[in-house]
Amino acid sequence: MSYNIKKAEGKLGILIPGLGAVATTLIAGVESIKKGFAKPIGSLTQMGNIRLGKRTENRYPLVKDFVPLANLDDIVFGGWDVYADNVYEAAANAKVLEPAVLDQVKTELEAIKPLKAVFDSNYVKNLDGKHVKEETNKWDLAEATIKDIETFKSENNLDRVVIVWCASTEKYFEAGAVHQTIEAFEEGLRNNDPAIAPSMIYAYAAIKSGVPFANGAPNLTLDIPALQQFALERNVPIAGKDFKTGQTLMKTIVAPGLQARSLGVNGWFSTNILGNRDGLVLDDPENFKTKEVSKLGVLEQILNAEQNPELYGDLYHKVRINYYPPHGDNKESWDNIDIFGWLGYQMQIKINFLCKDSILAAPIVLDLALFMDLASRAEMSGIQEWLSFYFKTPQTAEGLPPEHDIFKQLIKLQNTLRHIMGEDLITHLGLDYYQELVESMS
Amino acid sequence: MSYNIKKAEGKLGILIPGLGAVATTLIAGVESIKKGFAKPIGSLTQMGNIRLGKRTENRYPLVKDFVPLANLDDIVFGGWDVYADNVYEAAANAKVLEPAVLDQVKTELEAIKPLKAVFDSNYVKNLDGKHVKEETNKWDLAEATIKDIETFKSENNLDRVVIVWCASTEKYFEAGAVHQTIEAFEEGLRNNDPAIAPSMIYAYAAIKSGVPFANGAPNLTLDIPALQQFALERNVPIAGKDFKTGQTLMKTIVAPGLQARSLGVNGWFSTNILGNRDGLVLDDPENFKTKEVSKLGVLEQILNAEQNPELYGDLYHKVRINYYPPHGDNKESWDNIDIFGWLGYQMQIKINFLCKDSILAAPIVLDLALFMDLASRAEMSGIQEWLSFYFKTPQTAEGLPPEHDIFKQLIKLQNTLRHIMGEDLITHLGLDYYQELVESMS
Amino acid sequence: MSYNIKKAEGKLGILIPGLGAVATTLIAGVESIKKGFAKPIGSLTQMGNIRLGKRTENRYPLVKDFVPLANLDDIVFGGWDVYADNVYEAAANAKVLEPAVLDQVKTELEAIKPLKAVFDSNYVKNLDGKHVKEETNKWDLAEATIKDIETFKSENNLDRVVIVWCASTEKYFEAGAVHQTIEAFEEGLRNNDPAIAPSMIYAYAAIKSGVPFANGAPNLTLDIPALQQFALERNVPIAGKDFKTGQTLMKTIVAPGLQARSLGVNGWFSTNILGNRDGLVLDDPENFKTKEVSKLGVLEQILNAEQNPELYGDLYHKVRINYYPPHGDNKESWDNIDIFGWLGYQMQIKINFLCKDSILAAPIVLDLALFMDLASRAEMSGIQEWLSFYFKTPQTAEGLPPEHDIFKQLIKLQNTLRHIMGEDLITHLGLDYYQELVESMS
Amino acid sequence: MSYNIKKAEGKLGILIPGLGAVATTLIAGVESIKKGFAKPIGSLTQMGNIRLGKRTENRYPLVKDFVPLANLDDIVFGGWDVYADNVYEAAANAKVLEPAVLDQVKTELEAIKPLKAVFDSNYVKNLDGKHVKEETNKWDLAEATIKDIETFKSENNLDRVVIVWCASTEKYFEAGAVHQTIEAFEEGLRNNDPAIAPSMIYAYAAIKSGVPFANGAPNLTLDIPALQQFALERNVPIAGKDFKTGQTLMKTIVAPGLQARSLGVNGWFSTNILGNRDGLVLDDPENFKTKEVSKLGVLEQILNAEQNPELYGDLYHKVRINYYPPHGDNKESWDNIDIFGWLGYQMQIKINFLCKDSILAAPIVLDLALFMDLASRAEMSGIQEWLSFYFKTPQTAEGLPPEHDIFKQLIKLQNTLRHIMGEDLITHLGLDYYQELVESMS
Repeated sequence: MSYNIKKAEGKLGILIPGLGAVATTLIAGVESIKKGFAKPIGSLTQMGNIRLGKRTENRYPLVKDFVPLANLDDIVFGGWDVYADNVYEAAANAKVLEPAVLDQVKTELEAIKPLKAVFDSNYVKNLDGKHVKEETNKWDLAEATIKDIETFKSENNLDRVVIVWCASTEKYFEAGAVHQTIEAFEEGLRNNDPAIAPSMIYAYAAIKSGVPFANGAPNLTLDIPALQQFALERNVPIAGKDFKTGQTLMKTIVAPGLQARSLGVNGWFSTNILGNRDGLVLDDPENFKTKEVSKLGVLEQILNAEQNPELYGDLYHKVRINYYPPHGDNKESWDNIDIFGWLGYQMQIKINFLCKDSILAAPIVLDLALFMDLASRAEMSGIQEWLSFYFKTPQTAEGLPPEHDIFKQLIKLQNTLRHIMGEDLITHLGLDYYQELVESMS
Repeated sequence: MSYNIKKAEGKLGILIPGLGAVATTLIAGVESIKKGFAKPIGSLTQMGNIRLGKRTENRYPLVKDFVPLANLDDIVFGGWDVYADNVYEAAANAKVLEPAVLDQVKTELEAIKPLKAVFDSNYVKNLDGKHVKEETNKWDLAEATIKDIETFKSENNLDRVVIVWCASTEKYFEAGAVHQTIEAFEEGLRNNDPAIAPSMIYAYAAIKSGVPFANGAPNLTLDIPALQQFALERNVPIAGKDFKTGQTLMKTIVAPGLQARSLGVNGWFSTNILGNRDGLVLDDPENFKTKEVSKLGVLEQILNAEQNPELYGDLYHKVRINYYPPHGDNKESWDNIDIFGWLGYQMQIKINFLCKDSILAAPIVLDLALFMDLASRAEMSGIQEWLSFYFKTPQTAEGLPPEHDIFKQLIKLQNTLRHIMGEDLITHLGLDYYQELVESMS
Repeated sequence: MSYNIKKAEGKLGILIPGLGAVATTLIAGVESIKKGFAKPIGSLTQMGNIRLGKRTENRYPLVKDFVPLANLDDIVFGGWDVYADNVYEAAANAKVLEPAVLDQVKTELEAIKPLKAVFDSNYVKNLDGKHVKEETNKWDLAEATIKDIETFKSENNLDRVVIVWCASTEKYFEAGAVHQTIEAFEEGLRNNDPAIAPSMIYAYAAIKSGVPFANGAPNLTLDIPALQQFALERNVPIAGKDFKTGQTLMKTIVAPGLQARSLGVNGWFSTNILGNRDGLVLDDPENFKTKEVSKLGVLEQILNAEQNPELYGDLYHKVRINYYPPHGDNKESWDNIDIFGWLGYQMQIKINFLCKDSILAAPIVLDLALFMDLASRAEMSGIQEWLSFYFKTPQTAEGLPPEHDIFKQLIKLQNTLRHIMGEDLITHLGLDYYQELVESMS
Repeated sequence: MSYNIKKAEGKLGILIPGLGAVATTLIAGVESIKKGFAKPIGSLTQMGNIRLGKRTENRYPLVKDFVPLANLDDIVFGGWDVYADNVYEAAANAKVLEPAVLDQVKTELEAIKPLKAVFDSNYVKNLDGKHVKEETNKWDLAEATIKDIETFKSENNLDRVVIVWCASTEKYFEAGAVHQTIEAFEEGLRNNDPAIAPSMIYAYAAIKSGVPFANGAPNLTLDIPALQQFALERNVPIAGKDFKTGQTLMKTIVAPGLQARSLGVNGWFSTNILGNRDGLVLDDPENFKTKEVSKLGVLEQILNAEQNPELYGDLYHKVRINYYPPHGDNKESWDNIDIFGWLGYQMQIKINFLCKDSILAAPIVLDLALFMDLASRAEMSGIQEWLSFYFKTPQTAEGLPPEHDIFKQLIKLQNTLRHIMGEDLITHLGLDYYQELVESMS
């Protein structure tokens, strides 16, 4: 199969449900970068290299120089929020970035004012915003959201739009009948079915508008047949879910390393302390459960107990999140990992990550927006598994186990880029270098 | 190219220079496993699975069931040491394994008595062994070692032999004229050239005997043109150097993860405390330098400052090893990693690894012995880069940069195995699963 | 006031409600010590020195050589438990001590069989023991317990008995009318008042029998006017509550140090992982609350926010306990302490304590038993505040704030010993040494 | 003995050799506090309370309200340095305080320009300042320094002056003949004896001028009979040595806690990473040795192996300092403490202190200046042992062991203040509260 990728011409709009800490850190950052005050550190698309060809060819272009991505100067931001604060005010409240940083882009940030959000306090109890849409029927809310997208596109003279969900974690629930087909789903919208969450209304509106949608929270949103089928029908890329930052990022880095060496793991205790709005929402057990399920799954897949019952059959994995205001957005994690090696001897690894949640998440939003736009121009529709790299719970085709190992995710992403650009895939075999040596001897 | 791998029939001898903590832990372990008291945890060959074919095929055989390796029951151990203690006594002194574990295989361990070692106190000042060969000329020492190998093979009725260096770190020095060609090297042996280290005499003897040689210490040993050329001429596999355990293992796990996400690193401080004989030897600055060079190199390659000066150009990397008797073989490491992300914001990672050095190293020796024997039977001669996975400083062909990223090393190893067994290489592309979905819509 | 302390002649019985991990570790330890296999490490009475007189006198006797304590050889152990296992079996189940250690004192441990316990599952839901007293009325249960004490004393030919509570944490509740006077309390016993907890029945029985009672759990037990008044009337020493081990021990060591230097503290996050039966009981929120109240109080008193609102007025203190089976009795704690200094600059302290809960608690039980017996012989009745050193929540006279600073607690303990033995109290003034120097100049 | 303390009237000059990170952080802080921008956090004299009388009296005045100390508004700063930068420039270079903080007191800081220093590169190799006195004879250098003090006093119209050494650690050396008497010392000054260090010249000049001198570095300075005798003759208080901050502060907090509980300690490994000028100076082994001796001594005294050979006889204590530029003044320490308890069972404590060196040291300088001035007005001359609280190596009378336990140091300090103010000393006995209860029963 060959790819005929449309050029990234004209402006790209990035619309974000949830203009909180992550989104405002992203926006302030991109505006700072445009002005030359900062570098897009943490962004694979902007700062990452990709090896092409053999090691001896020494070809390592930047990703953005290899595949046709939208330029940062062509990006226009917008979004929805349950609070009416403009992006400058919201960023100041979030206390992630220092005032001196924000003030350099104050004008740009003040100009971005949130649209009224689709909100339902049944899904997020610990928030209490007033800046919400007045429509009371879910079909009408979806229509209003579609209208928002259209207006944003036309007012800003945009060529293309993508949506990346950066809002809160919704309460835990499982898919039901209304989520099985697009027909049932649309019926549910009209009937105001309580099982349709706000995030699903945004996703539906996006797909109907032909706009790619990436899901940064552990919400059910796109994990339902109705919307997956709808995305294929409408030829729209979708991807999710739950940005992989902080502790889970470290977990999917370290666990593959232990597994690579066939070291056993019989305990993994993970605790987090954080004091931002995300922490407040997760203080509610119903919302924490959604996050917990997302965080727990990664080890099960990487340390496959079915294949290796002697190494991973007794794994006890526990994850805790603690609301701890003194740390604000500085989400700190502590992991205790109990491993065992040769003859069953026990060892321990302790990892203390003093991280900044939004600083890690912001460049992920940027990369996802640019790659989803690329996928759209390459006519890759439906689930984009090659973006697993960015997610705690990567979305896959039904029946296909997700890949959590961040290094396999990276190879998948890079080989996908090589593939769509017509470059050789990389296997790291490399026996040819030595074959020459052997032959030169004879 | 197709491979015609000889079967692993008959007995395999594993000869080890240095019957200290690592070697005795290996031997006691293998004997315990043969008797059914323990599992070979930490050994990729024995406990690791390898995926074959597509994810949906669900083929994950054990490595040892996929490639033809020697069976543990066919292994016979021997070795050299500067102390005359038998393996039971040496294991007891090393205090890695509990008396109860050793006593279960006491008879087997007592039966293994070290041959007299080639030793030169100029290369290791802090040891003072008396169980050394009497020859004073290096050519004679090499001949005596070759004779040792022959005798060991015939007395034990062995089919094949491999050698894995588990002895001490020698002092730091660089290659000179005597190391450039096999002719100069043999002349140097005859002239007793002081620049030929004991480890080189063992390696020379191995290659001349057609015996694969793997180097577990950071010594120069095989990193000289003379012995590399000699190995190709004699059709012998060689591999090195410096077993990757503990802190460096963690480093080559974590650094690729940070690099994958384009996170900057401006400081990495690594300290170690250990109280075994290895720690005592490394308390001498000349020997520590050899180890330090080996430990420092890994970050430079993984976090490539040339490709990414903005992310890694200012990296300050410091490694310390401290002799600390209270911990014995429980080598503990503490790392402080200073990273920066979006807009340059600083974060920190602290990793405290309470490890057991010999427990991590023992299965590496086993895997290397088995894979080197496989390579020999597959007629793969010279440097075995596909075994980089096991080394702090992987040996490569001249001009070819080593790969330190443990995940690329793992793919290299696994794709090599797939390749020599005629299986498809794995690229993690996986777009085909989704192509079907798209097609099913039309 | 002068003290007329009776000699420690004859045998001392130590009766323990709860023959679990802590009690069996104590008993196995004392028996090992008697046989010369071990030292009573962690016991202030046995291993601690006490300074007497001026520094230049160089008088530092062991505490046990300074005050008249019962000799270890004169101790006889007994106890109650909800499981019928003898002490050897219970110790083996607890997995604190290695089999080799237990086997050295197997005969002694097997000989100790628990009496049937007073148990009420309303107070401890996660346990399910069957070895419980059949009486259904609380007065009858108290009488049966008194009878147990008498029988234990006469059968073992004891001179004196003390009781130290080592059983589980009961659910949280507050004192009511039935706990206000001894008359109301006895009426409640007869009426089977649900507000009388099992631990109170033991305490009542002890006091009525003239037996000192120390409370090692955070239970309400002795913190009620009824029993405090009863103890004074009967001339019986009482002390509590909640053995100070592990994380709280470290907290009352570190917090006074920060306070001494007038460093501010605005956050203290404490988490614990443990996998023993104590952890299982505390997995029930009602029981955890009792422990949480006890653990939280220490910082409030040491870092007195009323006196120092600018330093401690914003302190956010959070304590978590997590049931984590992989660690068994190895209770590990991790603390993150956010402090601030000069000009408000923030700093952090992280403390990771890899402790063994019962190893720390066992010598506390021994010391308390010996000191309570001393108090009894010195006719010190009622609350023994000078033993605050051993407790998370020291009991004090009504209206008197407890002292949590472990160093003030130690001085209190030591000066009490000096006081009752007629030695000068120590104030660490020490200006006299220098006065001599000045005078020698004139 | 009764004390007749002169009032703190008029202005107090604080002269500081070494206007580096610590001194400039102090000065900027005091000026900010005077202007109401900040609080003197970390200063016992300004923020600390002292209990007076019985607990029930509830008397806890601030120290500064209890004893007559100079008011911050009456303080005038000056000093010497080998660099000519004014205090604003030096503070900016030190990078401890943020520009926004410094700019609020820019005028005040710019006005303070260093006097030329007494410098000798033989004592500090890694510094290379040019702003040094031209005199080549040590007697002349002392005279010039005395003249500096006089001029500073008269120009600023000061009532009193104190000197606190905040300059670098000098190389290690031991006292010789020239240090034994003041006569030999003065002869040595005239003869330019190489064994007289720059810090000794400052100290001599101070004492001769009747100015108290406190030594914040581990230098030999005041630890010689010549200057101790001279201080007594001239009626001048002296105190030292080596400010107790960071890791050693934590060590003298934690070690007494372990010792209090009779827990054994068999290993204590301490490492530090720091990147300020202090770290650069200590990168020279000769200077590190001076610091190492100071840092090692604290455990030996607190964990007295002579009194407790079974608990502390095998203690292995190792201290490392690593120059690590990424951290600047953020001196981070990591300690691994190996302890053992009941039956010899091993436990571990890990402490990671992310501290800011100058933030911890600055308030110590302030307290010492104010307390030394108080001592002078109270006519307390010679060694001020009651200020041990502030030092890594407290100075004591010959033959008197220093007290390192920070809690005994605090009681010593507080009881000294109570003593000179005529208040009752506190012993924490507190039996009287309970005596009343007992009596009320009869």
